[in-house]
Formats: sequence, C-alpha cells, structure tokens
Amino acid sequence: MPQPESSTFRDKLHEIIFEADTPEGKAFDVILLILIAASVLTVMLESIEPLQRQYATLFTVVEWVFTVFFTIEYLLRLYCVLRPMKYATSFFGIIDLLAILPSYLALFLPTAQYFLIIRAFRLIRIFRIFKMAHFINEGDIIIQALRASRAKITVFLTFVSLLVIIIGALMYLIEGGSNEGFSSIPRGVYWSVVTLTTVGYGDITPRTELGQLISAVVMILGYAIIAVPTGIVSAEFVKEYKSGKANTQACRYCGQEGHDHDAIHCKYCGEQLNP
Amino acid sequence: MPQPESSTFRDKLHEIIFEADTPEGKAFDVILLILIAASVLTVMLESIEPLQRQYATLFTVVEWVFTVFFTIEYLLRLYCVLRPMKYATSFFGIIDLLAILPSYLALFLPTAQYFLIIRAFRLIRIFRIFKMAHFINEGDIIIQALRASRAKITVFLTFVSLLVIIIGALMYLIEGGSNEGFSSIPRGVYWSVVTLTTVGYGDITPRTELGQLISAVVMILGYAIIAVPTGIVSAEFVKEYKSGKANTQACRYCGQEGHDHDAIHCKYCGEQLNP
Amino acid sequence: MPQPESSTFRDKLHEIIFEADTPEGKAFDVILLILIAASVLTVMLESIEPLQRQYATLFTVVEWVFTVFFTIEYLLRLYCVLRPMKYATSFFGIIDLLAILPSYLALFLPTAQYFLIIRAFRLIRIFRIFKMAHFINEGDIIIQALRASRAKITVFLTFVSLLVIIIGALMYLIEGGSNEGFSSIPRGVYWSVVTLTTVGYGDITPRTELGQLISAVVMILGYAIIAVPTGIVSAEFVKEYKSGKANTQACRYCGQEGHDHDAIHCKYCGEQLNP
Amino acid sequence: MPQPESSTFRDKLHEIIFEADTPEGKAFDVILLILIAASVLTVMLESIEPLQRQYATLFTVVEWVFTVFFTIEYLLRLYCVLRPMKYATSFFGIIDLLAILPSYLALFLPTAQYFLIIRAFRLIRIFRIFKMAHFINEGDIIIQALRASRAKITVFLTFVSLLVIIIGALMYLIEGGSNEGFSSIPRGVYWSVVTLTTVGYGDITPRTELGQLISAVVMILGYAIIAVPTGIVSAEFVKEYKSGKANTQACRYCGQEGHDHDAIHCKYCGEQLNP
Repeated sequence: MPQPESSTFRDKLHEIIFEADTPEGKAFDVILLILIAASVLTVMLESIEPLQRQYATLFTVVEWVFTVFFTIEYLLRLYCVLRPMKYATSFFGIIDLLAILPSYLALFLPTAQYFLIIRAFRLIRIFRIFKMAHFINEGDIIIQALRASRAKITVFLTFVSLLVIIIGALMYLIEGGSNEGFSSIPRGVYWSVVTLTTVGYGDITPRTELGQLISAVVMILGYAIIAVPTGIVSAEFVKEYKSGKANTQACRYCGQEGHDHDAIHCKYCGEQLNP
Repeated sequence: MPQPESSTFRDKLHEIIFEADTPEGKAFDVILLILIAASVLTVMLESIEPLQRQYATLFTVVEWVFTVFFTIEYLLRLYCVLRPMKYATSFFGIIDLLAILPSYLALFLPTAQYFLIIRAFRLIRIFRIFKMAHFINEGDIIIQALRASRAKITVFLTFVSLLVIIIGALMYLIEGGSNEGFSSIPRGVYWSVVTLTTVGYGDITPRTELGQLISAVVMILGYAIIAVPTGIVSAEFVKEYKSGKANTQACRYCGQEGHDHDAIHCKYCGEQLNP
Repeated sequence: MPQPESSTFRDKLHEIIFEADTPEGKAFDVILLILIAASVLTVMLESIEPLQRQYATLFTVVEWVFTVFFTIEYLLRLYCVLRPMKYATSFFGIIDLLAILPSYLALFLPTAQYFLIIRAFRLIRIFRIFKMAHFINEGDIIIQALRASRAKITVFLTFVSLLVIIIGALMYLIEGGSNEGFSSIPRGVYWSVVTLTTVGYGDITPRTELGQLISAVVMILGYAIIAVPTGIVSAEFVKEYKSGKANTQACRYCGQEGHDHDAIHCKYCGEQLNP
Repeated sequence: MPQPESSTFRDKLHEIIFEADTPEGKAFDVILLILIAASVLTVMLESIEPLQRQYATLFTVVEWVFTVFFTIEYLLRLYCVLRPMKYATSFFGIIDLLAILPSYLALFLPTAQYFLIIRAFRLIRIFRIFKMAHFINEGDIIIQALRASRAKITVFLTFVSLLVIIIGALMYLIEGGSNEGFSSIPRGVYWSVVTLTTVGYGDITPRTELGQLISAVVMILGYAIIAVPTGIVSAEFVKEYKSGKANTQACRYCGQEGHDHDAIHCKYCGEQLNP
C-alpha cells in the first residue's frame, strides 16, 4: 500500500499510530499491545509483597520506562491527529491519558500508582489488529442487545434491589440475635445479594431452623428470578438475529429501510422494491 | 399546564400528590422519593449496633420526623382522593399505611420498628417520575412473561421440591452418622436446596467418598435442571416479542397478514393498510 | 354427576379412589394428600435427634397409623381396579408400595424407616386435584422439551464428565503436594464438578498461584459451558411453542398431522385440508 | 454381513478395530471401552494414598497390563490402516499415543504416570457403539452453535477479562490493607473471577463495609453479564433449529418456499415437490 507523494511525515505518523492496515501500522499496534500487557502485568506483580520487597528498584525502573514510552506515544497522537481536542476527549483519548497520569501522581500520592491498572482498558485495542470490523460488529450486536433490553433490565434490577433489602431486613430480625453474621440490616442485605445471585460465599449463613427454611424458599424462588435477565437478553439476541437477516435494501422512492425478507412492496410508501 | 378556574384546593392537591406531569407534582414526587430513600437508609443504619449506641437520640428524632411527615402525607392522600376506601385498599394504599404503622407499634413492641423497612416498597414510585409509561410497560412485559409461564414454573418447582426432599433424606442416610452438618433430614434438604440452586455456601459439605460422588452426580444433573426455568422464561420472552411486534391486521386487497407494527402499505401488494 | 343404577360398590370405590371429578373423589384425594404431606413431615421431624429422644413413642405411634392407613388404601386400590397387575406395576403402583414397605422392613432393619421419605413422590398426585389436565399438559411440555434435547444433553454431559476428570487430575498434579484438599484424583474431580457447575462450596480451594490461575481459566471457560444446556433447552421450548401453535388438524385423505398454520394443502398427499 | 473372498487378514482386522457395524467390530469396541474405563479408574484409585500404600504392586502390574494391551492395539491400528501417517497425526491417533506414552515415561519421571488420565479422552469412542451417527450429529450441532457464536464469545470474554482485572485491582486497594485474602492484585483478580462467575468459594471474602457494598454491586451487575453468553448461545441454537428444519427448495408450480423437511407436496398449491 504505497503512500501518495503528498503524504507528509505527520500523515505517515497518523497512519502508523492510528490505523492497522499497513504493515508498519500493524507492527506498531502489535508492539503497543505487548507493551500495554507487559505494563499491566508489572503493576499486578508489583502488588505482590514478597516480589515488591525483592525487586523494588527494578519495578520502579520498568514502570518509568513504560510511562515515558506511553507519554511520548500520547503526545505523538495529539500531534498527528487533525483535531487534537476531539481525540483528547474521546473514549480512547481519556483512557490513554488515565493510563499515564497515575505514575506522575504517584510522585506525590504513593497509592496512586495502582490506578495504572486502568491501562488494562487500553487492551481493547486488540480488536483493531485482526479482522477488526468483524469483531467490532459482533461487539455492537452484544451492546445493541443489552441496550434494547436496558429498560427491562432496569425494572428488573430495581425490583431485585427492593427485594434484597426486604429479605435482608427479615433475616436480620430472625437471625440477628444469635448469629454475628447478621449483626445489622446492611449485612443482611449483603447476604441476600450473595444468595439471590447464587454466588454463595458462605461467609454468612443462616443457623436457625426458621432462617434456613426462609433461605431455602429464597433460593428456590431465586431460580425463577435468575431466569428473567437471561430470558430478556436471549429474546433480544433471537430478535437481533432475525432483524439481522432483514433485508438491507432501502426503498428507491422513500429511502426507508427495515423491510422484511419476503417484502415485494415498500411497507411505508407502497412502491415496488428492487427485485 | 394552567388549571381551569373551577379547580378547587382539593383537586389541586390531588394533582400534586398523585400525578407527576405538572412541575409541582414532579417536584413533590422527587422530594417524596428522596425522603423515602433517606428513611430506609436510616432504618438500615439504625440496625448497626455501634452507630445505634452512639446516635440513639438522633435516630429516634429523625425517624419520628419521617413518620410524622409520612402520616400527614397519608392523611392528605385520603383527603384529596375521590374514593378514599379504594385508595386505602389498593396496593400502594396498603404499602403507604404499612410504612408508618411500625413506628407507632414500636411504642409497645420495640422490634416492630424494623418493619419500617417496608418503606422500601414505596420506592417503586420511582417509575412514576421519568417516562413512567415506558417503564411500566416493560415491567408489564416481564410480569406477562412470568404469568404465562406460571403453570410450567409451578410444575417445575413442585418437582424440584420433591427431588430436594428425596436427595436430602438420601444424604442424611449416607453422611448423617459422621457429619454433623447432615444431622437431620431437614438439614439435608437445606443442603440439597443450597446445592441444586448452585448457591453452594459450603457451610454443609459431604465428607464421605460416597457422599461426594452423589453430590457430584446431583450437581451435574442440576445443570440440566437449572436450564429448565431459564428455557421456559426465555421462550416466553421470545413469544412476547413476536406477538408484540405482530400486527394482526390483514390487507384489504390481497388478504395477506404478518405486517409490521409500523407498516402503512401492504408489503405484498403495495396497497394502503387500514389506519 | 349421578351414578347409573348398575354401579356396584367396587365401581363406586374405584371412582372415589382413582378419580377426582366427583365431590367424594376430590375429598378423598385432598385428605390423602394431607396425610401424605403429614407423614413426610413426620419422617423429617423424626430424624431430628432432640425431637426423636423426647417424642420417640409418639413418632412410632403416628408412623404406624399412617402405615396402616396407607396399607389399607393400597389394598383397596388393588381390589377396585379392573387389572390389579397393571396398577401394581405402574409408576404410581410401585411408588404406593414403596411408600409402605419401609415401615415393615424397619421391624428387622432399623434404618429402613428413613426410606419412608419415598412417600414424598406420592405428592405428585397433587396435580390431580386442581385442573389436572392443564398442569399435566404443562408438565408434558417440559418433559417433551427435555426428551427432545436428550441426545444433545447426553453428548454435552459426556463431554463435561471427561473434562472434569482431566481438570481434576491436572489440579491434583499441581496442588496435590501442598493442599490436603487435592489429596487424590477423585477429590480433584469432585472439586472440578463443584467449580464447573458454579456451586463453589469452598471446602476445597486452590492455594498455589498456578492452581488459582488455572481455576480462574476454568471458571471463565465454564461461562460458555454453562450456556450450552440452557441454550439447548431454551431453543427446545421456543420450538415447542411454535409447534404448539401448529395446526392440530389431520388430513382427511392420508390422516397425517403436523401441518403448518398457513398450510392449505396436505404436505404429504397434496389433497386440500379442511378450511 | 459376510466378507467378500478377497478380504485379507489386514482388511478383516481393520474392520474389527476401526468399524463398529459388524458383531466382532462392536464386541471389540465394547471391550476396548471397558478396558479404557478400567484403566482410567485405576489411575484415579492409584492417586489415593492409603490405597496406593496397600496395593502398590497390584497397581503397577495392572497398569502395565493395560499399557501393553493398548500398545499392541496402537501398533495393530498402525498396521491395518491404509495410511498410517494420517491416522498417527489424526485427533484419535494422537490421543491413542498419549494414552500409552506416560507409562514408559514414568520409568524415568515418576509423576509422569498421572498423565495416563489422558486415556479418559479415548472414552469419546463411546458414541461409536450405539447409533453413532445420531450422537455425532447432535454433537455437531452443539459445536456448530458454539463456533457460530465464537466471535461474540471472544469479544465477551475479552471484556470480562478486562473487567475482572479492574475490579480485582479496585478491591485490592480497598481491602488490601486489612484482609490477607486481598494481599495482591492477582489474588484480587482471582476473587473477582470467583465472584463474577457466581462460583463463590468464600475462601476470599470482603470484610470492610465499602468492600461488601462494591461486591454487592458487582454481583447484581454480574446478573446481566451472565445472561450474555447464555443469550448468545440460546439464540444460536434457536437459529440452528430453524435452519435445520428449513427446506430451501421452492415449489416448481407456485414458487412458494418454507416447506418442511419431510414435505412431499407443496403446502400452498398441493403440487408435488422435487424429490
């Protein structure tokens, strides 16, 4: 893919840094992703105390190497993009900034460095490398399905939140006296969230007969409850697939889309569709 | 939205308290919801012993302020509604009453105050404020789907209940002697509910080899079992969407059906559909 | 519903005991169900040691009253049914026998009495009382959906069983040395069943870093795995609903059924279907 | 099924070992499966220390008998197959080799013998015996559905992996100081995998109020998240069924489509469909 003569250094840089369809652009993205993954790993390893004690200086050096590299990369992005403000305020622009800030903040606030883990979000760029469009599209379908079921999920979660408070308070009344796990309503609510979502840590468990009976009822009823969000999202995906099969053609006369597979006439203006 | 001249004070009050489509009505509902949320939070915080010991008087005062406010609100609702008895016996009417009663009962029964948590149910009013109809409709779809699958869910839960009793008794026979967790059949039943619903607290676990083998079989079979309610509800939602999307009207000219909700013209012959 | 003159005592008895559509038949079934539930409850309570120690004689008396009653009922069923052998070898016939046998066996084998819990299965009769056909039909749809997906579920469970053995052995190799929870491959397999089904008791948990890493991978992959049976059963229910809407009419010429809703001609012989 | 005269010993052997449709072939496969199952069981029992100490010699003998038998079987397979290299590099060929190698390796590396558990994979042959085609087909549908949703599942798992790292780091910051369970970010990530997948061991649990609050939010949001893979796979199965049932052929006379798989006549005009 040769560049036209008029391609300036800045255009060239833009293509390497922002696009992934030239060999250089792809190589840049692959190296960047490896560095991001390595820097995330470094932050994770740094948090392990025995390692931190032994290799403190190494970690500091490595982290600053990453930070300097990412800072240069961020500045280059700002330089070669046509509208720097638009990039800086975009989703990836903010993530890119948040990925370097904590290192500088850590000079004043020691714990700030752990926010470097935000770099993990930069890994979303991974979809850019291999058949990007394909994966972005699949991701879109998931987001589409979740967005379409947003109102239903909101109603459902509101109902679950209220249920969880009531059950938590009830269990506090029953178990509170004899079981230090249910020493307050908020702890009871925490327990009922753990139970209803079937996580079931077991750090707080009912001990009285009545408490165990009510827990069993809650769990069995929870069976039906957990089926609701799955049902909503499943139906949304089924629908998505069907409309995905939908005719992509637009009416020649009114330009409207969304016609069924078997449609002969535009359902909005009545004119015949292209065969 | 100016009120007609004939609008009396009582009508005006009704509109503010019961409706949310005037600025005053909306403001009233927002303030009411904040107060309800605050009062629920108060009850929750009050149950935390260290806080209760330190701020006992404050909690009592705050709670009585809420109770007096909600009592006045309840009386005003009774006053401005056209049929007080109908409101008093409606779902929200009963919740509104239950939300103030415990405070008065607590004068005689100290633990009664924790039933104030019932106030949480008043928060359902939240859907009244923003695009109420939209959310109510989505909630209706959920309720519709659950109601349609009620008979199936009942059969399923009856079967699960019997299964859980049999498995509980079997595990009691196997583990009962050596494992204090399975000291009686009811405890075995509690264990099998915890296991089949995949909550898995771990407060009672099998210890014998035979017990662990049977548990493993129960869990793997439980895989298929947990799929049943989800499958039922999913199918119901898929159905719901389809009938929701379906337009039952047939074309006057060619008689074909299956037109979309937003179709103006017949997609088969192009003639206009009945409005 | 008056009986014809020729109705003998045996016919009358048959109707009371086996049917639920006369007032006497319904009353008999309701009383029977209450007695069964009471007897199941008795067995459960009897297994609680403190209660057993205090009310030993009472439990023995109550249990024998139930056993004698159920024995008489079983003999009456054998007497009034036209083909006693067919009833005795039917599903309910075997359950009815198993529900009384343990009491007699317990005269020789003390632990045999706990098998009385099999009586719980007699509670399936509950669907006979209220709108039986309706519930039986819904139960049939569930069984139909599970039967239709039997082959798929078998393949799936076989795959899961093999996976669980391999993961269990792998974890034994990694954790076996330092973690008494993974002291043998069977325990490792038990752990992997507990983990893959998301039950997660926590009685056996990985402790080494490598073990926790592999566990995390197993759990995340388990996400996709748990979706498979649910997907299979959901699709089956969706299909069931659709075919449920299917035309119930049989072709007048070839007698075949299963025609679509919009079918005008029999798809097997080509003759026109009744309008 | 008599063999033609020209059938050599090698052909005959091939039929017995590789096919399952002659009585001898079926008998061979059944015996082989029993031996594989027995050898897998042996490896599992051998890992139980008390048994290993008591029956060490017996286990060694039994294992070598299996190994020698499987080695002969592997060599016979290589001998009677037409293209030995193709078999040796096929899925089953590699599994068959891996199933005997560890025994020989264990002469030098003692722990290598536990890799004999790989023999479990040979049990997949089980589907060869009874109505193989049927089960293979059902397995294909499952694999098809998973493959079709591969891209979506990849996007989903990538998102979950990033989420899990962020939540793990966040919980490390909150709980790290006071809770030895969250002593490093990797442990926090392990905890968030355990929580989001609803496994919930309970070996690491939040103890601070803020940690419990965030956990509760994570679990409730996890509700919607766990619905996504199930929804994806369900929709795929629903689609699979539809395309599986669909007959793509159009009627020669009226041109209508959508005929069932078993349709002989067009359901719209009654004319015969192409065979």
